[in-house]
Amino acid sequence: MKNRIITIGREFGSGGRTIGRLVAEKLGIPCYDQELIQKLAEESGFTADYIQNESEDAAHGFWSVGVLNADQPWGYSSNQDRLWSIQNDVITELGEKESCVIVGRCADVILEDKADLLKVFIHADFNKRAQRIVEKYGETEIPTEKRLREKDKRRAMYYQLYTDQKWGAVENYHVILDSGVLGIDKCVEIIASLY
Amino acid sequence: MKNRIITIGREFGSGGRTIGRLVAEKLGIPCYDQELIQKLAEESGFTADYIQNESEDAAHGFWSVGVLNADQPWGYSSNQDRLWSIQNDVITELGEKESCVIVGRCADVILEDKADLLKVFIHADFNKRAQRIVEKYGETEIPTEKRLREKDKRRAMYYQLYTDQKWGAVENYHVILDSGVLGIDKCVEIIASLY
Repeated sequence: MKNRIITIGREFGSGGRTIGRLVAEKLGIPCYDQELIQKLAEESGFTADYIQNESEDAAHGFWSVGVLNADQPWGYSSNQDRLWSIQNDVITELGEKESCVIVGRCADVILEDKADLLKVFIHADFNKRAQRIVEKYGETEIPTEKRLREKDKRRAMYYQLYTDQKWGAVENYHVILDSGVLGIDKCVEIIASLY
Repeated sequence: MKNRIITIGREFGSGGRTIGRLVAEKLGIPCYDQELIQKLAEESGFTADYIQNESEDAAHGFWSVGVLNADQPWGYSSNQDRLWSIQNDVITELGEKESCVIVGRCADVILEDKADLLKVFIHADFNKRAQRIVEKYGETEIPTEKRLREKDKRRAMYYQLYTDQKWGAVENYHVILDSGVLGIDKCVEIIASLY
């Protein structure tokens, strides 16, 4: 029997990561988020910092490589493509090993036919997300609005680059929640109740 | 204090109408769907049949009128524009009168600042919707696939025409559920629990 896995896509600053952690705690199953970066580091030889900066939130590989489809890299494989391939293996292995929550990293598409999925997407109003990232990560020299837009853009591009699907599009998820209006706790309750 | 209103946008065949009715029953509040057509008929002088065919699912007014924005109708107002205006008044009045569920008809946008809204969108996989509309409405001489695509396209165009927003886009809703995967009853339970 396939493992039951909750995948959580999320806009930056929407609290999706926190929701994932709390859902996993409530259900008594593991949550893979930063842990995934450690696993990727072990498997790939890249440092965790490099992976943090160069994978999900940084869809710039195809600018330098000049391709939009990782399956046809014109004879060239960027670090990002290599990371994608390892990530694919690591997430597939996880999906076959145990029921869990996985935050981001296209796990919804990677595990599509390999696990019994509940595909969740978390979003929130721009201003609420801006407020949240300043509270959580502090101000930086890059204006908050730009940080938000850039991060979301890169997540969307990364998702499209490697899955050929549209990030945050209604048809790709079973449950989409506005954490800004519903609140983190209610989102956790709904997702856990659907498991 | 503003009334609490659940608005339900839905893909054709997703069971959104049924979900709306069941949520309203569960909460003991009225549900406006076909009832709205009766109200519109009373207010407008058009027949219910005409309204059924010419409003939400038939965004063809602007082809003949040649405009995309009802605010600037180049001196011309189609029947559809007139119906929109009456619908706007009827839904605004409802929103000010009582807490309720309203299915479709851009109620989410019409009541945006006029009520305490829970904005829901229901969707489902194409094949599940096709199966549902054949079970519910039977076969017609128009192929099922075409019926689905046309109806969704027209709802989307109608929504965009009169609200300047994108129908079924994540940012416009608080809760988006895949009724094909979650099932009608679970959708009802979630929505009622959020009220």
